[in-house]
Amino acid sequence: MADAHYVLGVDLGGTKILAAVVSQSGEIKGRAKKKTKPERPADEILGRIAACCREAVEAAQLSWAEIEAVGIGSPGPLDPVKGTVIDTPNINLANAPITGFLSQELGIPVYIDNDVNVGTFGEYVYGAGKGRKHVIGIFMGTGIGGGLIVDGKLLHGFSYNAGELGHIKLVVNGRKCGCGQRGCLEAYASKTAMIRSLQRSIKKGKATILTKLIGNDWSKLTSSVFSQAVEAKDKLVLREIKTAARYTGIAVGSLINILSPEMVIIGGGLMGNLSDLILPIIQDYAKQNCFPIMYEGVEIVPAQLGDDAGILGAAAIAWDKVQAAV
Amino acid sequence: MADAHYVLGVDLGGTKILAAVVSQSGEIKGRAKKKTKPERPADEILGRIAACCREAVEAAQLSWAEIEAVGIGSPGPLDPVKGTVIDTPNINLANAPITGFLSQELGIPVYIDNDVNVGTFGEYVYGAGKGRKHVIGIFMGTGIGGGLIVDGKLLHGFSYNAGELGHIKLVVNGRKCGCGQRGCLEAYASKTAMIRSLQRSIKKGKATILTKLIGNDWSKLTSSVFSQAVEAKDKLVLREIKTAARYTGIAVGSLINILSPEMVIIGGGLMGNLSDLILPIIQDYAKQNCFPIMYEGVEIVPAQLGDDAGILGAAAIAWDKVQAAV
Repeated sequence: MADAHYVLGVDLGGTKILAAVVSQSGEIKGRAKKKTKPERPADEILGRIAACCREAVEAAQLSWAEIEAVGIGSPGPLDPVKGTVIDTPNINLANAPITGFLSQELGIPVYIDNDVNVGTFGEYVYGAGKGRKHVIGIFMGTGIGGGLIVDGKLLHGFSYNAGELGHIKLVVNGRKCGCGQRGCLEAYASKTAMIRSLQRSIKKGKATILTKLIGNDWSKLTSSVFSQAVEAKDKLVLREIKTAARYTGIAVGSLINILSPEMVIIGGGLMGNLSDLILPIIQDYAKQNCFPIMYEGVEIVPAQLGDDAGILGAAAIAWDKVQAAV
Repeated sequence: MADAHYVLGVDLGGTKILAAVVSQSGEIKGRAKKKTKPERPADEILGRIAACCREAVEAAQLSWAEIEAVGIGSPGPLDPVKGTVIDTPNINLANAPITGFLSQELGIPVYIDNDVNVGTFGEYVYGAGKGRKHVIGIFMGTGIGGGLIVDGKLLHGFSYNAGELGHIKLVVNGRKCGCGQRGCLEAYASKTAMIRSLQRSIKKGKATILTKLIGNDWSKLTSSVFSQAVEAKDKLVLREIKTAARYTGIAVGSLINILSPEMVIIGGGLMGNLSDLILPIIQDYAKQNCFPIMYEGVEIVPAQLGDDAGILGAAAIAWDKVQAAV
């Protein structure tokens, strides 16, 4: 394999599959993109992933002999022994032999991890976390996901699914969470939670610019709509974002007491244009909620890789495995 | 060092120093005990530790050539680089060169870690956690301490002081904690918290057998007094113990979501005679507060090493370092 100097990073999502050929230093040599068609039979979806990989290699003008391995970031939870996704509410791949099928189809090793672990590992190798050893990644989006890097390695734990940071309990008997439990971080700081809370306020007759911006169609509430509302100094939206940041900060403080990281990376859609507003609040509440000796020297920073986080992270996972195998 | 087949484990506490000569399989070959005299100058305390070590070797009828290293469990937080204790409210050893002084004095390597890490590592090597790889230790006493084992290694983190499990936030804006923050596990489930809550109830005129058992002297509230009150079905005491167990269970659920351990070991004075009452509540609330997929196969069990946890754990730390150095 002397000539094989690249890996493929695959970002598998509910709407699209992204694949990229990536060098060890994180340079993207070629890309491809396909619709996931998540409702189709598993075989077909896996075939689309393989096709997307082939197209990325073609786009990079490379041959297959130059590709060492494939890394895939997928929605979880995963069964690492079988190389399968246990349950994906949005993609028809539950229990499908993802790594088995693709490694046979493509003729090289295929590794899989969940999308937030992949995102965290990508930031650790190529982004904000470069050179650190103890890193926590928190991604604020529709839900809240997390990844933990301890001593330079992703922490998977016994079930392989460690890092469910959206489901840290912050309020005993608190708000109902989508997971069925109560008082989870996600019930306060995810976009889903924010929308629910905004809807309650509007029902109570509170005014917000959102009614003008999106009417009654909450699917239109993108990060840029949030930004518009913040620029307009909309009180209701500001309050929601600050609440989300505050609870995230408290969770980060708690995580610092537990894990003592040197860096906490905050990413995800909500951070997009609003990191100037959100990050200082997270830093402030984290500091108030952990021991000074453990806060000392800790950096709480925005994620850097943006839209390429998935493919670069998946490539980083593949490189990590390739090197471990040497 | 072909003949050196033992280590010394030292349990440094506010009242007494315990030392033991321990084989690699955890057999205790000899013991010694000295008063700490924690208010004396640091030199003198360190001298007492060294003397206690020498007495244990004599008691074991061994020579110093047979002792490979010393492990010490000490109240934290620690500075591992300097081998010092940063701050000990109860022992006059802040910033004293503990490992430096003792390794020179005794002529063998000396390693130090905080007492709850040592307790957790001891359970992992010689006690309830034998053969596991991902273990959490929680010790319920005057305060609440914790230790984390990930992939067979103690997790120290960036500050070296990871595992402050007593200061996981469970109730935003909750009860004031001794650490100055609010809503920490320790503010609900430590003996200190239970005493405060019992005192409040008594002030409100609630009846309890404790007034008969200990009068107004709360220093008499030992584990066995707790047991007596439980046997007498004292409502107030039962309520406090159940509250402590419930909050601990919620914290354990949260920790399972974060770290995905395969075993959680619950130890400390409060567990003593009351584990039959406390443990099922912890198990129940842990299960309710984490993902089923991460609870599957997790054992939540009592600590096994009892009074020897400190010396055996410290010995386990020393053996771990000795083996790593080979």
